[in-house]
Amino acid sequence: MNNRPDEAPTEVERWGKFEIVFQGPEENDPYRNGVWFAVFTCGERVVGVKGFYDGNGTYRLRFMPDRTGRWDYVTASGIRELHGHTGSFICTEASAGNHGPVQVKDEAHFRYADGTSYHPFGTTCYAWIHQPEEVRRRTIASLAGSPFNKIRMTVFPKNYSFNASDPVDFPYEGSPETGFDVQRFNPAFFARLEGHIEELLALGIEADLILFHPYDKGRWGFDRMMAEDDDRYLHYILARLSAYRNVWWAMANEYDFMTEKKMEDWDRLFAIVKVEDPYGHLRSIHNGTRMYEPQSVVMYDHGKEWVTHCSIQHWDVTLVREWRRLYGKPVVIDECLYEGNVPFRWGNITAEEMTHRFWEAAVRGGYAGHGETYLHPEGEIWWAKGGTLHGESPARIAFLRRILEELPENSTPLFTMRQMETLGVEGEYYLGYFGIHRPAYFVATLDEMGAYRADIIDTWEMTVTPVDETLSGTCIIQLPAKPGMALRIRRLQPVSS
Amino acid sequence: MNNRPDEAPTEVERWGKFEIVFQGPEENDPYRNGVWFAVFTCGERVVGVKGFYDGNGTYRLRFMPDRTGRWDYVTASGIRELHGHTGSFICTEASAGNHGPVQVKDEAHFRYADGTSYHPFGTTCYAWIHQPEEVRRRTIASLAGSPFNKIRMTVFPKNYSFNASDPVDFPYEGSPETGFDVQRFNPAFFARLEGHIEELLALGIEADLILFHPYDKGRWGFDRMMAEDDDRYLHYILARLSAYRNVWWAMANEYDFMTEKKMEDWDRLFAIVKVEDPYGHLRSIHNGTRMYEPQSVVMYDHGKEWVTHCSIQHWDVTLVREWRRLYGKPVVIDECLYEGNVPFRWGNITAEEMTHRFWEAAVRGGYAGHGETYLHPEGEIWWAKGGTLHGESPARIAFLRRILEELPENSTPLFTMRQMETLGVEGEYYLGYFGIHRPAYFVATLDEMGAYRADIIDTWEMTVTPVDETLSGTCIIQLPAKPGMALRIRRLQPVSS
Repeated sequence: MNNRPDEAPTEVERWGKFEIVFQGPEENDPYRNGVWFAVFTCGERVVGVKGFYDGNGTYRLRFMPDRTGRWDYVTASGIRELHGHTGSFICTEASAGNHGPVQVKDEAHFRYADGTSYHPFGTTCYAWIHQPEEVRRRTIASLAGSPFNKIRMTVFPKNYSFNASDPVDFPYEGSPETGFDVQRFNPAFFARLEGHIEELLALGIEADLILFHPYDKGRWGFDRMMAEDDDRYLHYILARLSAYRNVWWAMANEYDFMTEKKMEDWDRLFAIVKVEDPYGHLRSIHNGTRMYEPQSVVMYDHGKEWVTHCSIQHWDVTLVREWRRLYGKPVVIDECLYEGNVPFRWGNITAEEMTHRFWEAAVRGGYAGHGETYLHPEGEIWWAKGGTLHGESPARIAFLRRILEELPENSTPLFTMRQMETLGVEGEYYLGYFGIHRPAYFVATLDEMGAYRADIIDTWEMTVTPVDETLSGTCIIQLPAKPGMALRIRRLQPVSS
Repeated sequence: MNNRPDEAPTEVERWGKFEIVFQGPEENDPYRNGVWFAVFTCGERVVGVKGFYDGNGTYRLRFMPDRTGRWDYVTASGIRELHGHTGSFICTEASAGNHGPVQVKDEAHFRYADGTSYHPFGTTCYAWIHQPEEVRRRTIASLAGSPFNKIRMTVFPKNYSFNASDPVDFPYEGSPETGFDVQRFNPAFFARLEGHIEELLALGIEADLILFHPYDKGRWGFDRMMAEDDDRYLHYILARLSAYRNVWWAMANEYDFMTEKKMEDWDRLFAIVKVEDPYGHLRSIHNGTRMYEPQSVVMYDHGKEWVTHCSIQHWDVTLVREWRRLYGKPVVIDECLYEGNVPFRWGNITAEEMTHRFWEAAVRGGYAGHGETYLHPEGEIWWAKGGTLHGESPARIAFLRRILEELPENSTPLFTMRQMETLGVEGEYYLGYFGIHRPAYFVATLDEMGAYRADIIDTWEMTVTPVDETLSGTCIIQLPAKPGMALRIRRLQPVSS
């Protein structure tokens, strides 16, 4: 295969993937020396992009256009075969369901590039891409039927409790027996990874891609590579994957458990990701917790400029406001304990507790993350391998997602409703959650000029029960004195703003 | 009445109350100027004690002997009638059930003066002594049938939601209509208070006496007296009550909500209590919480030398170890939300949640406090007025108390059992609690030389189910995968230490 630019696609939708391919030299360490660029131009907009070596003498270069219209490009390289190619294509309107990459909207929220608001409802299947084909097919089918629009997944294989088998393939040339050449990538592995990212894209799911993790423990050695090999890996994966609009860069999982790396290493790796990604995909880093002090965690400073949002492991989701105050960025508690029954404390809460944590985080303007860890005869546990969901929390999380997506665009955490954590728009819309609190009644302080209707929401039974009266001013709403109740109050005639 | 020293009791049991009474002048502000002392001597032990004016020309002086044998005393005063009296009495062994005052044993625990360990199981009835006789009788009867061995109660009346009626009497001369003379005490009120402290003593209940609180809001003015009047009040109550062995000094409830007082005021008041109490009764101060940040509380520095233990309001009882590390003193979370259904968030959790919080604190080497706030047709709510207990948590708290009191004397929080918060003695005795965690099994790491038996404890059902096998070394214990379970593991042949 050796397509010329004029054989490249002539039309690509906005935030789609444009790709050109050339043949070039196979010798002289092309993964490092096969450097080539393209400059894409559309009106005054200019974007520089790097290509990568895909093995067998094949060189690829990918680009994600962010505006419609005609784009022209020219390639540059010290390698003759890759230099000086020019071409153009037309960027068409995004197709239905394509809202572009997710970005940070403000200090509390996310949105898609087209302005549509995005509420992350994430789950975790760390090593799902490393499982046999049949398991991966079930994982995708499970995700299709789930409320999840984000998934945390690792590039490197995982060696951990309930997850000790070798992966189907590796990112590098070599084998567990012979060892790995961490300077020569395995393009087939990355092509497979890209296929899975496209499967997720088709489901509207963001791939929160974990670039490094400690769950190797020296078995394959990917958790303790030389700094230059870490850098090479980042340059390569950034060149390959940045053009996929649903990729997020999760620098590490439990970064502080990777004892071979220092804080300077993490800062350096973040800087590389920020510089090498032309599109500014979201960047975060996730901390570990200590056995006996889940509340005393070693948090990376999410205030650093290259961190776009807080990716937090913590067992107290009510701290959302503290973290936002501390870092001024949206808060995603990707790990706040998982629904399951394994002996580990991070993985044995009830579906009720998992649901409760999603609501607690949501009404504070943050987002909890899902994971499932039920013991399984064949050791197939969702959190590690994906496969099939068994828990009862996803249905409740879907219920919450519907309710959150009905919120007005400009909703924020409010502090005017006493005795209830509330999200909404002052005077117009209030969504509150009582959690472990179960008052027999609630005193709402509403605009005396306004008319409101209230709904009592049972977050576990997934019922919405309208209060059979129109409310105004200070009024008392009777409640079923049981835990897990939410209250929604909406103005009948919204004030035109 | 004008008894001479030789009319005073000739025998008093250890930690009992010895009292002498004289008649003296009624004029010239005897509450301030009626200063008199006695020096008590027993061998090389010498204790100086202050007397107080009890109205109608009566002056009293009380003493709590802390060792058996003959005590001699002599009085001294600028007032002729009170000066130079001498006498003696025999201090006999403490009677059954009299273990002396509670003291701090170590950085985590309490004990009675006779060495018996004391685990505080407190409840809160702030204004119970201010209620009508009939309610007070029911309060005492309820306490007699309860697991509680400590009660938080205020000296000053309370003006707050569900607690707005005037008290039966006041600590000062005057009335709500005419106002109060805060320089002239009402001896009848204090005599009544003393009677209630004696009723509690008979039930083995410590009176955690709240000296100041903000729930007056200027209605009677006791929350905003001049500094000299605060001091006079402390001197008076210390002279009257210090000889009662079951008195604890709680400097304030929600001290930080008393906006008229500064930190220097609290330090000064603490210094007075420490200096004027010859027996060193326990001293603490209790903080308030903010509506929307229960976790960001303004804690008094419990590390200050006059604070004997931490009296904390916080909604996260799992922070016990953090506070102990910070202050190096025993931790009592007197307020961690109450069982009830009132609209206030501090008072509407379930009995299950209240029980859960007691266990969470206990296995970390701390102690939670109980309160009950169920709506009541006549507004008689235990937390404010006492009366009758309606909740389901006291029975579970009694169950926990029995289990804690079976612990070996030298039990401490342990860190060797992974995945379970544990209290006990390494290698010999483990009491763990899983809380919201519900593992299907637990991996115990026991001494391979030892033989152990385990009990699975359901903290809500109050059942203890022995595991039907002898355990040793690393072993797996199957568990019912449900929340609220505890596990007790005891060595069959304790190692002789």
